[in-house]
Amino acid sequence: MQITVLGLGLMGRPIARTLARAGHPVRGWNRSPLDAELRQGIVLCSDLRQAAEAEICLLMLAHSAATDAVLAQLEPHLRPQTTVVDMGSSDPARSQIHAERLANQGIAWVDAPVSGGPEGAAAGKLAIMAGGSAEAVAQVRTALEALGRLTHVGGAGAGHTAKVINQLIVGLSIQAVAEATALAEAHGVAPHLLRAALAGGFADSKILQIHGERMASRRYIPGGRVATQLKDLRLAAKLATSAGLDLPHLNDTLARYEQLLAAGHGDLDHSALHLLLDQGSVGA
Amino acid sequence: MQITVLGLGLMGRPIARTLARAGHPVRGWNRSPLDAELRQGIVLCSDLRQAAEAEICLLMLAHSAATDAVLAQLEPHLRPQTTVVDMGSSDPARSQIHAERLANQGIAWVDAPVSGGPEGAAAGKLAIMAGGSAEAVAQVRTALEALGRLTHVGGAGAGHTAKVINQLIVGLSIQAVAEATALAEAHGVAPHLLRAALAGGFADSKILQIHGERMASRRYIPGGRVATQLKDLRLAAKLATSAGLDLPHLNDTLARYEQLLAAGHGDLDHSALHLLLDQGSVGA
Repeated sequence: MQITVLGLGLMGRPIARTLARAGHPVRGWNRSPLDAELRQGIVLCSDLRQAAEAEICLLMLAHSAATDAVLAQLEPHLRPQTTVVDMGSSDPARSQIHAERLANQGIAWVDAPVSGGPEGAAAGKLAIMAGGSAEAVAQVRTALEALGRLTHVGGAGAGHTAKVINQLIVGLSIQAVAEATALAEAHGVAPHLLRAALAGGFADSKILQIHGERMASRRYIPGGRVATQLKDLRLAAKLATSAGLDLPHLNDTLARYEQLLAAGHGDLDHSALHLLLDQGSVGA
Repeated sequence: MQITVLGLGLMGRPIARTLARAGHPVRGWNRSPLDAELRQGIVLCSDLRQAAEAEICLLMLAHSAATDAVLAQLEPHLRPQTTVVDMGSSDPARSQIHAERLANQGIAWVDAPVSGGPEGAAAGKLAIMAGGSAEAVAQVRTALEALGRLTHVGGAGAGHTAKVINQLIVGLSIQAVAEATALAEAHGVAPHLLRAALAGGFADSKILQIHGERMASRRYIPGGRVATQLKDLRLAAKLATSAGLDLPHLNDTLARYEQLLAAGHGDLDHSALHLLLDQGSVGA
């Protein structure tokens, strides 16, 4: 299956290489020119017309606006029988609009955002949350399974919804671990002993072990950036509003990330939410 | 080492049997008489005087008030060289008071609350969070390690503090999973597919998989009871107040559990926090 990967950033590059290693003919396309080193092992398309000549056009862009812009340029060149797969973390409402519009041209749509980062993409161990029709998902399943474990969670947009919910849980778990870390330190329980004691129990999680360590050591090197987490929580709040749901901890966590961004901490790891409990660390 | 287990409830009984199986001479004591079936395999003390004749007096009572009451009756009979081990989930401030008072009589103190439930106790697979002096913990380590993995987290009271923090993380994680479940259902993503998609990633946890399933199926059979979770979150709030910490998600989760109790749901599983988001499920 001919595959084009559009967006050769931190995620797109290992995705292109892993698909090629699995035996697929893969070409890449990027909005800006790539250094030879970054390009290594990836055959580039000459233009978007060539990018569109594929069974799968796989988008891996930074945010919904970039996805919309590239898709608008790509779309005039797309042929029926192509499936567009958006692996970025986009707005589910936009995905549904794209899916409907493309369907009118005989072009299939799958949203398939991932978790697992560049390491997961390189190792073929991503968690892939796929939204789309059963037929569309069936068409791309074999190719995507070279990248990791695929779960078909619902119709068009459902994959992006699942990714937003993933980020909701991550954000709220970070606040829980921040409160736990602050309370432990205030009462003289060393956070690394707390994490060791809680390992394997009901309170345990990757967030406790990995992000909890970042909080205790005050080393907020990303990992996942505050600005990215904030973007995803804004999407989550939009989903809640559109469903008439009041989700109090989502609302509060979103406000706390907004405060962190306003204080100039957008490029810190999202575990830096702990700074807001770390008395005097963040100006009001 | 002669051990007395005081409090032969759901936890105390398997603890006594597991210690005996590991080769320790163990006797049990209970506030009320025990049925022959429940007593099986446990040698009972004739009275508190005999209960006090042990290297380790291990308390496993339902709450801090019961621990205080039994300890007050036991204390006149205790000899120096005995270590009192409180494995219940008690108030850390009370534990520090007990530890100091007993130290004046040459009696050592360890608080060693656990997570892992009756199954963990029976299998010797509890997580044990121990607080106390290095000497006191060293004296009881071998015996307690028959029950599971012991982590020495700090001085007297630190074990109880760690357990309270464990419950803080559990309570806040339940709210996070409740918000995630509500959002998924509102947007047509089946919760079991969401859990499958998120398994192994940063959003994954036992709370997501186990308590998330209870929410989606609306089967709130405990597990851990709302009333117990509430008791532990009240202790967490007390710890936060005494340290001058404002922990917003703890405060809100505590208020939500109070609301659930007031609505008559104290005996449901603590995952029933989801009812407050499940529109119309709980009267105001």
